[in-house]
Amino acid sequence: MDIVVENIYLLVIVTLISALQNAFFALKVEKECNTQNVKSSDFERVSCANRNCMDAYPTFLAVMWCAGVCLSQAPAAFAGIIYVVVRQKYFVGYMGQTSQSTPGYLFGKRIIFFLFLMCIVGIFNYLLMHHYGSNYKEYVETITSAATALLLIP
Amino acid sequence: MDIVVENIYLLVIVTLISALQNAFFALKVEKECNTQNVKSSDFERVSCANRNCMDAYPTFLAVMWCAGVCLSQAPAAFAGIIYVVVRQKYFVGYMGQTSQSTPGYLFGKRIIFFLFLMCIVGIFNYLLMHHYGSNYKEYVETITSAATALLLIP
Amino acid sequence: MDIVVENIYLLVIVTLISALQNAFFALKVEKECNTQNVKSSDFERVSCANRNCMDAYPTFLAVMWCAGVCLSQAPAAFAGIIYVVVRQKYFVGYMGQTSQSTPGYLFGKRIIFFLFLMCIVGIFNYLLMHHYGSNYKEYVETITSAATALLLIP
Repeated sequence: MDIVVENIYLLVIVTLISALQNAFFALKVEKECNTQNVKSSDFERVSCANRNCMDAYPTFLAVMWCAGVCLSQAPAAFAGIIYVVVRQKYFVGYMGQTSQSTPGYLFGKRIIFFLFLMCIVGIFNYLLMHHYGSNYKEYVETITSAATALLLIP
Repeated sequence: MDIVVENIYLLVIVTLISALQNAFFALKVEKECNTQNVKSSDFERVSCANRNCMDAYPTFLAVMWCAGVCLSQAPAAFAGIIYVVVRQKYFVGYMGQTSQSTPGYLFGKRIIFFLFLMCIVGIFNYLLMHHYGSNYKEYVETITSAATALLLIP
Repeated sequence: MDIVVENIYLLVIVTLISALQNAFFALKVEKECNTQNVKSSDFERVSCANRNCMDAYPTFLAVMWCAGVCLSQAPAAFAGIIYVVVRQKYFVGYMGQTSQSTPGYLFGKRIIFFLFLMCIVGIFNYLLMHHYGSNYKEYVETITSAATALLLIP
């Protein structure tokens, strides 16, 4: 399975980091819950932020892994890391004030969209290669690696 | 990794479609939330439908991918597409009236059960082949492809 | 794909069992919901237990699969089975009284942490092998198999 690990180890690392983050979110909710102010505004906010993050988590994982397997793992893992950072910002911002969270949410959408495009390009490339014999994978990978830099623009 | 992509590309496409659908659901909830009637019955309904769909989503993804990898990707992807359509009906029906949603929910169960059976058959086939050297995979794949048509019966 | 199935079939079985369990949880919630006592304490409790289980489910699946693919499937699947048992205990305990559920929750954390460590060891082993040519995978697998026994300690 070592050849498999070679092609996914960056994705695994990002998955682990996001799992750690989930644990951090869960601890925050638990801590806020144990302070007995279950009906308070703080608990509602932390719980809501956690639920929003958790709702989007399976979609993020699925799209990131598809993008990494179908096209190229390095850009997918990089986008995944940015997503984790954005989610952290979103969660912390949500705890402060609701209005701060909107940019983080929109930013998350952009990364998911980028990963989504990567999947489509990867499948399209596979179909082209399969039916016409042409293989643009190397060009596409170069372009993709360059395009990930665009994600850093706030 | 091209041989890997060959065996999963249909599953990736279904995953992407379901991710798009998740985004659609999230937008609906956000839109309903922004109309400021947070305590209204409409928001409750959309939010509840979204949560039901999101709760079942990781299970669906896991079972679909297992079925696709263990047995055969085309029937698994086809069942996945039907699940997405059913979920759409369920969500739209939930927004209208709660009583309409029950058939959709039951229908989803049938598809998950079908994918579940595919996994079991796939693993059973692998174990048979591994221990006794017999390989019924081709027969099983033919039967499975025929059986997917049964999912179309309402 | 048979060589792929060989390396993941235990993980698939655990995934199927956990999917069955999810269905069981969902049925419990639905049943409690249909008894029309939607605002009752029982429904709140079952619904909360279900949501806690569902929130942790994608993280569990991702970490288990990463651990199984990167290092060794048997210990990962074994830890997965224990997690399923713990979750069952947690859910049943939650329905009874909230204070009973705390040990189950902590136990689940330990298993996730163990799977997490397995992933890190697997990636570390891959990187060592890739850059220095040394391969400790067999030693690590033996140690891991022995270490899973520690999970049985309550």
